[in-house]
Amino acid sequence: MAAAMLVPALVDLGDENDDWQVFIGSAFLIGAFCTLVATATRRKSQARLSQRYGFLLVTTIWVFAPTVASLPLYFSSLELSYAGAFFEAMSGLTTTGGTAISGLDVLPRGLLMWRSLMQWMGGIGIIGMAILILPSLGAGGLSLFQMENSDRSDKVLPRVNQLAAGLLGAYVALTIACMATYVMLGMGAFDAINHAMTTVATGGFSTHDASMGYFESDAILIAATIFMILGALPFVIYIRAFLPRRFQRWRDPQIPVFLVICAVLSLTLAASRRTINDTPFGEALISSTFNLVSVITTTGYASEDYTLWSNAAIGIFFTAMFIGGCAGSTSGGVKANRLVILYLLVRASLHRLVRPHAVQRLRYGNQVISTDVLQTVTIFFFLFFGTLLTGTVALSMCGLDLTTAFTGSLATVANVGPAFGQIIGPAGNFGSLPDPAMWILSINMLLGRLELVTVLILLFPSVWVD
Amino acid sequence: MAAAMLVPALVDLGDENDDWQVFIGSAFLIGAFCTLVATATRRKSQARLSQRYGFLLVTTIWVFAPTVASLPLYFSSLELSYAGAFFEAMSGLTTTGGTAISGLDVLPRGLLMWRSLMQWMGGIGIIGMAILILPSLGAGGLSLFQMENSDRSDKVLPRVNQLAAGLLGAYVALTIACMATYVMLGMGAFDAINHAMTTVATGGFSTHDASMGYFESDAILIAATIFMILGALPFVIYIRAFLPRRFQRWRDPQIPVFLVICAVLSLTLAASRRTINDTPFGEALISSTFNLVSVITTTGYASEDYTLWSNAAIGIFFTAMFIGGCAGSTSGGVKANRLVILYLLVRASLHRLVRPHAVQRLRYGNQVISTDVLQTVTIFFFLFFGTLLTGTVALSMCGLDLTTAFTGSLATVANVGPAFGQIIGPAGNFGSLPDPAMWILSINMLLGRLELVTVLILLFPSVWVD
Repeated sequence: MAAAMLVPALVDLGDENDDWQVFIGSAFLIGAFCTLVATATRRKSQARLSQRYGFLLVTTIWVFAPTVASLPLYFSSLELSYAGAFFEAMSGLTTTGGTAISGLDVLPRGLLMWRSLMQWMGGIGIIGMAILILPSLGAGGLSLFQMENSDRSDKVLPRVNQLAAGLLGAYVALTIACMATYVMLGMGAFDAINHAMTTVATGGFSTHDASMGYFESDAILIAATIFMILGALPFVIYIRAFLPRRFQRWRDPQIPVFLVICAVLSLTLAASRRTINDTPFGEALISSTFNLVSVITTTGYASEDYTLWSNAAIGIFFTAMFIGGCAGSTSGGVKANRLVILYLLVRASLHRLVRPHAVQRLRYGNQVISTDVLQTVTIFFFLFFGTLLTGTVALSMCGLDLTTAFTGSLATVANVGPAFGQIIGPAGNFGSLPDPAMWILSINMLLGRLELVTVLILLFPSVWVD
Repeated sequence: MAAAMLVPALVDLGDENDDWQVFIGSAFLIGAFCTLVATATRRKSQARLSQRYGFLLVTTIWVFAPTVASLPLYFSSLELSYAGAFFEAMSGLTTTGGTAISGLDVLPRGLLMWRSLMQWMGGIGIIGMAILILPSLGAGGLSLFQMENSDRSDKVLPRVNQLAAGLLGAYVALTIACMATYVMLGMGAFDAINHAMTTVATGGFSTHDASMGYFESDAILIAATIFMILGALPFVIYIRAFLPRRFQRWRDPQIPVFLVICAVLSLTLAASRRTINDTPFGEALISSTFNLVSVITTTGYASEDYTLWSNAAIGIFFTAMFIGGCAGSTSGGVKANRLVILYLLVRASLHRLVRPHAVQRLRYGNQVISTDVLQTVTIFFFLFFGTLLTGTVALSMCGLDLTTAFTGSLATVANVGPAFGQIIGPAGNFGSLPDPAMWILSINMLLGRLELVTVLILLFPSVWVD
């Protein structure tokens, strides 16, 4: 992260903006501190972490990272409160995309670059964590890698290092492809770099207050839609392309479900706008699909204030916030794999009521779903709605109205970004919220990003009793 | 029901109101039709119903009942649309308590009596169904009776007929006690009869637009709070009082949980009003407890427009709508027994992540929770949130704003009654909603009342394939 801070420092230096000193200072501080800690705690023997310390380590990293990433924001010329700077950094690293900063169009380019870089680093961090770390802790629901691991003959890549390198390669390649597409469609180089990083990370930070609406280009909306979808697909499929023999072996049922949900909701929304607002269907379809995919993939771009379209549109967008992309991607939320398992569970349970003696094994693709996985998926939903409601009450205690409190809690725990209401809608900004609310929203983003279980398990006393 | 219609007919006849003809006419129509159907389908042999036809029968009854109960409302001098009359009848029989009728204070007394009677009949119907019918179908989560049935030595009463008579007796006794209390505290006889019926049924219909606020009496609010709580406790405990030997045998864990939730939320709300609104704590506590208990027990009375207290208050009331009373009572919603099981499940699952080899059996009170019960409780939550969101989208398609659509869907699926927003808040009225919205809300009330599973299972095609 210290090294990454040199990029915005260079940008600001090139622009002759004094903020470069802030980036260099923060980078030095973080680099020095971490080197010291690393040196002091260095040991030759690699002790194996127990489960609970694994959860503690992951949580600590994801609290520490925004703490240091927020430093340049806090010390910059922005005059953010520390709660605001921490919120912005948490929103960046968790690729949520809600912002506390307004006036993006006139912001120093170094700060814009840092915001985008946070999301880009957060994105690959999430993929790595979701595919490599959480499954070995038994959390994170049903990851692709975990499933394949249980079927020994079908490993994607034999070693974790290779897998990590493959994922990083795919991530970089997607980002470059996205950037090139944006440039070809007329976006400036700086905007293209920034938006490519935040598109592939399904982050949603923009360099303009008007978000993607600034460019007034349908072609760019379509390209962004495609790359948001690519960023929300399980990244393992991109590595599989290099392993042709096994490519056909396993089809992930969450992918068609995710794509069908996107298509059905976009068509419904476009049709409703054709009916209610008399918008020509073609025009309605492009902007409907872009904004809906942005919400479903938990990116958080907007091309316009879609809450003005109609109450029907608001209902559809609201529901879309609960969906999320695919597991093993940069997107957040409930995610399509859990929706698939949930549907199978409900269907099987109802069937059992009528035919108590029928024996059924639930299958996800061609894999039998174990009781453990079922239980992890099930409690995820309870923790999700529990966090959502707790966040709502806490935010309303800070004086926020019901719509802002509930959809703000939802937009952060699902890592979507924009919410609804007067303040934090797609055309709004989190900057005017009181500091306690910013902390609550930051906690929600952390919880959502770490699939809830990782953090909440630490709060159960019985976990720490030997 | 035809017989019950004679009561409001007599009231209207005494008041010299022409609506008595409507009640007599409806009673004759229903009585004649049902006698015909009963005669035509009468058979000596009692064929045992299979599960799926059991679900179909229960659902049919609960669709047919409001259809006929709505007739006097539709043909009366009210000039309701049929959607409005059906909504009112469904809201009555499911003891939801949201009303489509305004100007209650000047309504003919026969109609007021019919509204209260619908809730009272609905209340005992729900208890009977929850304790006697649904458990034998395997739905309805974990009912008291079902649990006791599995432990043969601990049956409350040996025969279903006796149990039903005992429940009815307890219900009537509670209603009379409530009415007597209201009269003693200064309520007029007619108001006392009506409010007693809708309090014990946790229904919430009032004879005044200002609901319980009309009486401007703290003593009445306290009495109503107590009787709402009594109506939301599992009714089996009232019969146990007559069986002293076994009274101590089983303590239902949902009861302390329910009471603690009521107490904690009421105290929090009163404290927040002391802080934010400078309301004296004593005064705040009485009205906070009354209105919160009204929401938690899914009754739906209001003593004033509590949405004006503060945003913090709204957040607390909103969350309270998700809770519900105890299983085996007249109240709706998620209910305390499910919350207990859910908490046990989450705790056990998190514990398992850290200690994969620990074997744990979940216990509800002194009963081991079977996998079947766990599964039924689990899918209830999914169906609850699925219905809530589907209802929200459907209502927003009717042009309702997000707050009205979401909280309206919640208030009906949880059978609470009043929701939030400009239109259907605690001081508002469902009457101005468009007809399609009324039908959606009616469906939600039906689904919620029948514990979702009973109705939704009928929609799965595989249930009907032999």
